[in-house]
Amino acid sequence: MNRMNNSGTKKTSRGVLSSARLRPLSKKYPFSASPLVKQSVKIVFLGGLNQIGKNITALEFGEDIILIDCGTAFPEVGMPGIDLVIPDFSYIELNKQKIKGLIVTHGHEDHIGAVPYLIKKLNIPIYATPFTIGLITYKLKEHKLFGNSKLFKFRAGQNFNVGIFNIEFVHINHSIPDAVALVISTPIGKIVHTGDFKIDFTPAKGQMINLARFAELGKEDVLLLMADSTNADKPGYTKTEKSISESFDFLFQKACNKRIIIATFASNIGRIQQIIDCAVKNNRKVMFSGRSMINYVSVAAELNYINAPEGTIVDIDSIGRFKNQEVVIVTTGSQGEPMSALSKMAHSEHRKVLVGINDCIIISAHPIPGNEKSVSNVVNELMKLGCEVIYESNYDVHVSGHACQEELKLIQALVKPKYFIPVHGECKHLTNHAKIASELGICESNTLICDVGDIVEVSNFGIKKAGRAPCELVMVDGNGVGDVGSVVLNDRRHLGEDGVIVIVALVKLKEKKILAGPDIFSRGFVYVKESEELMIEAKKAATKIILECFEKPNCDWNMIKLEFRDLFYKFFYEKTKRNPLILPIVLEVKK
Amino acid sequence: MNRMNNSGTKKTSRGVLSSARLRPLSKKYPFSASPLVKQSVKIVFLGGLNQIGKNITALEFGEDIILIDCGTAFPEVGMPGIDLVIPDFSYIELNKQKIKGLIVTHGHEDHIGAVPYLIKKLNIPIYATPFTIGLITYKLKEHKLFGNSKLFKFRAGQNFNVGIFNIEFVHINHSIPDAVALVISTPIGKIVHTGDFKIDFTPAKGQMINLARFAELGKEDVLLLMADSTNADKPGYTKTEKSISESFDFLFQKACNKRIIIATFASNIGRIQQIIDCAVKNNRKVMFSGRSMINYVSVAAELNYINAPEGTIVDIDSIGRFKNQEVVIVTTGSQGEPMSALSKMAHSEHRKVLVGINDCIIISAHPIPGNEKSVSNVVNELMKLGCEVIYESNYDVHVSGHACQEELKLIQALVKPKYFIPVHGECKHLTNHAKIASELGICESNTLICDVGDIVEVSNFGIKKAGRAPCELVMVDGNGVGDVGSVVLNDRRHLGEDGVIVIVALVKLKEKKILAGPDIFSRGFVYVKESEELMIEAKKAATKIILECFEKPNCDWNMIKLEFRDLFYKFFYEKTKRNPLILPIVLEVKK
Repeated sequence: MNRMNNSGTKKTSRGVLSSARLRPLSKKYPFSASPLVKQSVKIVFLGGLNQIGKNITALEFGEDIILIDCGTAFPEVGMPGIDLVIPDFSYIELNKQKIKGLIVTHGHEDHIGAVPYLIKKLNIPIYATPFTIGLITYKLKEHKLFGNSKLFKFRAGQNFNVGIFNIEFVHINHSIPDAVALVISTPIGKIVHTGDFKIDFTPAKGQMINLARFAELGKEDVLLLMADSTNADKPGYTKTEKSISESFDFLFQKACNKRIIIATFASNIGRIQQIIDCAVKNNRKVMFSGRSMINYVSVAAELNYINAPEGTIVDIDSIGRFKNQEVVIVTTGSQGEPMSALSKMAHSEHRKVLVGINDCIIISAHPIPGNEKSVSNVVNELMKLGCEVIYESNYDVHVSGHACQEELKLIQALVKPKYFIPVHGECKHLTNHAKIASELGICESNTLICDVGDIVEVSNFGIKKAGRAPCELVMVDGNGVGDVGSVVLNDRRHLGEDGVIVIVALVKLKEKKILAGPDIFSRGFVYVKESEELMIEAKKAATKIILECFEKPNCDWNMIKLEFRDLFYKFFYEKTKRNPLILPIVLEVKK
Repeated sequence: MNRMNNSGTKKTSRGVLSSARLRPLSKKYPFSASPLVKQSVKIVFLGGLNQIGKNITALEFGEDIILIDCGTAFPEVGMPGIDLVIPDFSYIELNKQKIKGLIVTHGHEDHIGAVPYLIKKLNIPIYATPFTIGLITYKLKEHKLFGNSKLFKFRAGQNFNVGIFNIEFVHINHSIPDAVALVISTPIGKIVHTGDFKIDFTPAKGQMINLARFAELGKEDVLLLMADSTNADKPGYTKTEKSISESFDFLFQKACNKRIIIATFASNIGRIQQIIDCAVKNNRKVMFSGRSMINYVSVAAELNYINAPEGTIVDIDSIGRFKNQEVVIVTTGSQGEPMSALSKMAHSEHRKVLVGINDCIIISAHPIPGNEKSVSNVVNELMKLGCEVIYESNYDVHVSGHACQEELKLIQALVKPKYFIPVHGECKHLTNHAKIASELGICESNTLICDVGDIVEVSNFGIKKAGRAPCELVMVDGNGVGDVGSVVLNDRRHLGEDGVIVIVALVKLKEKKILAGPDIFSRGFVYVKESEELMIEAKKAATKIILECFEKPNCDWNMIKLEFRDLFYKFFYEKTKRNPLILPIVLEVKK
């Protein structure tokens, strides 16, 4: 079905697709008026919560669909108890005979996290770079799905066909190794998708972004550019990853005889490499703490994405054998996650690491929006234990993995696309990115700001929204996938804010008798002691309601239930100005 | 009891206390070895959640206590359903015969919000500047407490006695008018409390901070300095409020024919004055939206803290009479609060203002930690409606009201206190502030980092922690004050995360009969449809449990209840990997 290049063998110079290998491409194309040109490519934004174009996007031409990325979103404040949000796969299931494969730009959770959930439904081939495939493999093994999966590795610079599309991987910089942009050749023209990226002339590891290829694309009549908007409201340039190295050098010196503990994103292998290099210079051993840290580092070490002289990395179990000044611990928890290794240290609950005045702790990360408070709490707890804590406000110990405005301009200026869709961002980021594009000369009608669920049609004659695809939030809670929806969430919010009141009564309607109750139980409402009188009053009111109902024609248990609910919403609101969830239970004995 | 100055009459030059008016002060004092010197001042940090030294602080000498500020804290993430957190007044109630008065530094909610709750318990005299008294008056009227209250107005530069203490108000800059620092003369020396402050050479209204007085204090052997630490981890200086004016000028020009809507803190009267000035220059009328905005502006206008040419400020009801380019609306909601005017506009629910492509909306505020997400959501919604939205990342439309590191150094350098307690900040801020003090020459043993509840003793011979005062969180939820505690909150969190399962059964133990049920009800757990089979299985298991219990000696309803709870925690966790709150209800018919 899919004709693939062997690694490197049929590659043309600079990885550009040779014209012989793609069916309808011609020299004049894509601006010639061949019959094919009237066709359009559909782009379907299937996932991403507020991050439009994140998590998963479908690209459709005729009978062929490819998927780009398949990640999870972080649950938002209004989703209590939810572990993960995965994309809605209904559009994919409806079109399953068309789906030719999944292309993954890089290995962050918001790009690979939902792969197992997709593969369970539809075992399509997956195409990605070696490190990304390594992480996907790990994930599939965890879900016991590895055996049957079809994984294909390509490197930046290589290209391959998936259905009618040809895909070229272009090297870019980001906060994880082996991230790529995509050049997707379709029968009507080229689509460039930057993935998440930044421009880093001196990355911690590997090459700078392949700007030359982006420059070439400027001459190849790119039909559509889709580009990362995460930092589109930030002026200037994102600092180079290498700048962290200087801060670390300084802080390692300053730490003197203290133990150093650095919290960072487990996937930021470049950052971890810089820590290792700095540790080697300062005669310290490196230990890793936290499950995901150990996972990422193992995958990276296995594939040679991390280098350390023999004996530098030691198991954290051997921590007792070293003095404070001989140790660097790299740990998870830079977002203040309650169950992470750093949180456990802050609450003196870590089984192996007890922190105090002899520790210098560096938070080498920026709080993801929404996590500011929890990060702050962890910093405060660590300081209360006497630790020295270095965080962003003090020193430059973190840089972003996403391009700021000047970098976005450079990509626009090089690629010179006909149409532009800003992706990977909230509406405010996309709007800012669209403004940048318009400053660079893309006329406003050629730029489209999309929403999750939008279907876009692009051809050489225009770009437009052409309908909506299903895009419900699919929430994962424990074992359940998609069994929690808005009704359940509303109830949880309601319960969480004001608690629950249960009223139970057993009645024999025929004899107009109350056999048991009404009894009232509450949870999460007020202290039982404080509310004793209130509950006695409520019970009296409930009894009165039942007796009144008995006298009404058509009285049944449901009527009593509804009357209970009405009564108690009013009753408790008036008495307490609170709105507990009222759960009336009326049991009827018929015999 | 309290000897007070009449406004200005007995004031000495520069507002310094004349030596005749304070009992034990002498020239040699406070470093002479008079018997009094062996006594110490107690400082008790009674409120503030994580903001140590905020909300309320008690100062005690012998038989006299004064309180400084009486504010509310914002509820934290772990406090679902809670409206407000007020300080624990138990220490105050225990010592009520000693309490001589409440001194308020300025009118922000975290400094005056809990005044009505205190006054209900203990109607002590309140001392503050005119604008602060205006806001307190409004608050007391709202709580129907104004009639009996004892309010005393003093201006910056004046001083007055409260019990054994003499209090001098010193003018400082902050994001609300009429904010003051306190110089508290005690029998053993002077204590300087900066309150919330910044150094602004060009404030929007009024004078710059009275730096000359702080310089004088440097010669007056200040025993203890307590200073604002909010921005102690931010290097440099806080920008002047005046800088906003330039941004507004530019943005008003840029808005052209659009209507301008500016969201800011209702208490930031200086900001609002700048908006009015800019509106006058640009021939726009000013309208106010949001309850608290209208309240603050009325108090400010009444007391002449806001000036506007006749006809500039118009009622928002007359909005229909003006063109877009003739209007500026100043609104609440800069923190993305769900019920605020701006949020209503963003969701097209505002009764008077419908926003769209003809609106330029400026968020002239910084999100308070924890509000980042909700502010972001409001910005996105406004942009989806086509509004142009200006926020901090784009333009300088907000400055802080708190001093950064260089300003803190200046105050340290001028006041030259013997002892130092950093206040108003989380542990991380206090730690940074302590570091600054040590750089300025205060030896580390003379600086104390405190926690909420700490009692500190300071004398001329040392400073030390000397015990703990009760400092429970007192939560206000609806009408209830303090009737929600940790058990209720834990239940709310539990309910909010995983929902509730109620199991009801009616049994007749004597006859070993199940008369009704067991029936199972759930809320906030899973969709009913998805869980039908699960519930049938659960019912079967419950029936089995009851029958088994019947056969046990000493079987009673409580045993069945406990067995239910055990069974269902395990049952539902195994089946779903979730932990709903289990509420078993077993009713017993005895006859």
